Amino acid sequence: MTAAVLSIGTELTRGELVNSNAAWLSEQLTSLGLEVRHHSTLADDLDGIATELSRLCQTANVVVATGGLGPTSDDLTAKAVAKACGVGLVRDEPSWERIKKRYRARGLVVTALHAKQADLPEGAEALPNPVGSAPGFAIAHGNAKAFFMPGVPREMKAIFESSVIAAIAKLGQRDSYQVHIRSFGLRESEVGEMLEDIEGVNGDITLGYRAHFPELEVKVLARAATAAEAEQRAKTIAEQVRDRLGDAVYGERDDTFNAVVGEHLRDRGLTLAVAESCTGGMVGAMLTAVPGSSEYLLFDAVTYANSAKTNVLGVSPDTLRGYGAVSSETAAAMAEGARRVAGSDIAVSTTGVAGPGGGTDEKPVGTVWFGLATPEGTHTFRHLLHGDREQIRTRAAYIALELVRRYAMGKPVSEGPFQSTCDQKT
Amino acid sequence: MTAAVLSIGTELTRGELVNSNAAWLSEQLTSLGLEVRHHSTLADDLDGIATELSRLCQTANVVVATGGLGPTSDDLTAKAVAKACGVGLVRDEPSWERIKKRYRARGLVVTALHAKQADLPEGAEALPNPVGSAPGFAIAHGNAKAFFMPGVPREMKAIFESSVIAAIAKLGQRDSYQVHIRSFGLRESEVGEMLEDIEGVNGDITLGYRAHFPELEVKVLARAATAAEAEQRAKTIAEQVRDRLGDAVYGERDDTFNAVVGEHLRDRGLTLAVAESCTGGMVGAMLTAVPGSSEYLLFDAVTYANSAKTNVLGVSPDTLRGYGAVSSETAAAMAEGARRVAGSDIAVSTTGVAGPGGGTDEKPVGTVWFGLATPEGTHTFRHLLHGDREQIRTRAAYIALELVRRYAMGKPVSEGPFQSTCDQKT
Repeated sequence: MTAAVLSIGTELTRGELVNSNAAWLSEQLTSLGLEVRHHSTLADDLDGIATELSRLCQTANVVVATGGLGPTSDDLTAKAVAKACGVGLVRDEPSWERIKKRYRARGLVVTALHAKQADLPEGAEALPNPVGSAPGFAIAHGNAKAFFMPGVPREMKAIFESSVIAAIAKLGQRDSYQVHIRSFGLRESEVGEMLEDIEGVNGDITLGYRAHFPELEVKVLARAATAAEAEQRAKTIAEQVRDRLGDAVYGERDDTFNAVVGEHLRDRGLTLAVAESCTGGMVGAMLTAVPGSSEYLLFDAVTYANSAKTNVLGVSPDTLRGYGAVSSETAAAMAEGARRVAGSDIAVSTTGVAGPGGGTDEKPVGTVWFGLATPEGTHTFRHLLHGDREQIRTRAAYIALELVRRYAMGKPVSEGPFQSTCDQKT
Repeated sequence: MTAAVLSIGTELTRGELVNSNAAWLSEQLTSLGLEVRHHSTLADDLDGIATELSRLCQTANVVVATGGLGPTSDDLTAKAVAKACGVGLVRDEPSWERIKKRYRARGLVVTALHAKQADLPEGAEALPNPVGSAPGFAIAHGNAKAFFMPGVPREMKAIFESSVIAAIAKLGQRDSYQVHIRSFGLRESEVGEMLEDIEGVNGDITLGYRAHFPELEVKVLARAATAAEAEQRAKTIAEQVRDRLGDAVYGERDDTFNAVVGEHLRDRGLTLAVAESCTGGMVGAMLTAVPGSSEYLLFDAVTYANSAKTNVLGVSPDTLRGYGAVSSETAAAMAEGARRVAGSDIAVSTTGVAGPGGGTDEKPVGTVWFGLATPEGTHTFRHLLHGDREQIRTRAAYIALELVRRYAMGKPVSEGPFQSTCDQKT
């Protein structure tokens, strides 16, 4: 089956917003097995939308559209669809009841403008909006089944996942279910090799990969005759995927790496201190992006200057002179100093050469030492990271948090993460 | 004049990349006075590209296309344009010479694949690529002038700015010049009011605004009969804009806020320490994103726990008990403590309620105190910031750096920034 993505809104054609919806939808449609041939983005113009919709519905089997479903006068999508299909608009009563209930629950006055959001083209089927007021809708037109959703990414994603995926699967007389697995520490090519045979052995399974630097998300999509069967198959194969990827898997679809690290610390009742050099505050910024992080993060010392390493963390000037700021000895002393000063259960440290300058033959750009001080002793690890300054720093911040995650999960940390993986460990 | 944006590449239709080029180009075209009616994104398919191009060239006066100009076999744009225009491909010798020179300068072997990048549709005019190998080109087709550029954003932007802007201006028998002014601290609506009359009084000037939270960029576009005249006009009006926006202006087009702050510190030979609570490392992460920041940033203490504020920065437990962690007294003691511990010339501190929890009637979510410790004394400032946790933290990190910028520029800081501006100062 082929698909087209239609995005509606003058804020897009004027370039005020980047059209991230089209990319997200295309990725979803591709992983559902559709061939996306065309994205079309239009200004808020009734005739323009109606004409383009009819054109796309001739050439694609599935058209997925976003935008123009709001209450204001420049929201023209329902009207344009009705025009293209040669039908009128009719009030969808269940949607209208849901809208009224939603607004009233917020103590807001409901007006005729809000009712407009429940006026759908005749013959359309409403797609309930789990997180907003405007419903989406689906309608058959030309050679295609067309789906319309609000342009707000959160609402679009919620409707796509709760209604559109299943409806598309049914077009092929199949139902589907998708599981998302989030990982850090493996390269996309490595993961591809580790999971290479799964699609071959399981004809009902499609694997999708999405890199969000430096993370990788693996999506397991199952197709089956019933929704329950698809869900069971997806979950079974997802379990196999998790087994193969091992420790690199940190969570599910809505998890974020920093929040997961925090949850493990909270679960174990552990407090943390951080000492950063090359990451310059990124580890702290990641941890404190999570509400409630003050429960476990006591202190983060960004000791960029050697004098700060000495004054604040008690790193001996002899260590700095003898081994250098980028060394196992300094990383250990930084972590131990942070743990001591903060009185925390554990502490993690980073010290490295983020570049672009400052590299030497012995310590090239990308060399980063990590320290983990615990009640059982201190470990240090060296990684040689690739990329530009921002990539090296981001990856280093992730590795520091990965050390904390492993310790908080009770995994052995003496060998460090990624023996076989994304970063050359030396 | 009307315009359409054509994006070519299967990586886009599959959703592997977000199409930020279309937004960037639309914003540019809009600020050049064109009405962008349509974006079209296509997979790498010869006939599909040729057909869509001809269609767009019937309905728009200007078509701007990106992608498909590389050396590999799936780069089909030049061939598709030739097909749409009913012409052949001819080697553009100056482009071919430039490509060879570029590759050889890098010690690379030049092959026939590279020559393909210099094969342009007959009648096309090459657009030199200042930062890459593949040239762009322009050709008249249908009712339109069509421009083709590589999909790599850096190359696309360089060609657009060095060739396409002027070519579009000439379509209207005019030349143009644009100046970019970067600011922090004023709302878009305020800036709009401050500059309201400029376009009315100067018919040759178009102002454009682009918000990159929490910054705002103002673009001054001048049109004139000659390029020199346009440049002079744009620069004259840009000077007026800078005067009106005053201290909120921090730089030009390629400047970044954190790098500008660092340059001011370096220029004055000042060293800096930071003490962060609610921003949790973001101030440090911003400063250290700039290579060479170790010259001026000595230390950043992320003192999330009160014990760290006391142990590391020497904030008295009485101060924390009597006034609270979010108070003028604590902000002052944090900044003074960081300055003392690091031995720096100045220090800045943040302490506030980032939310979503933790707000009270007296100190609602968004309340942030800032401290600036200097050889001349310590100042504190309170702001009430709006938005979600991430927005409050980001804006607070910017305000902390803004205090440093003003001090390093020798401006009076006793009144604090933004008396009349984006954040409610209380």
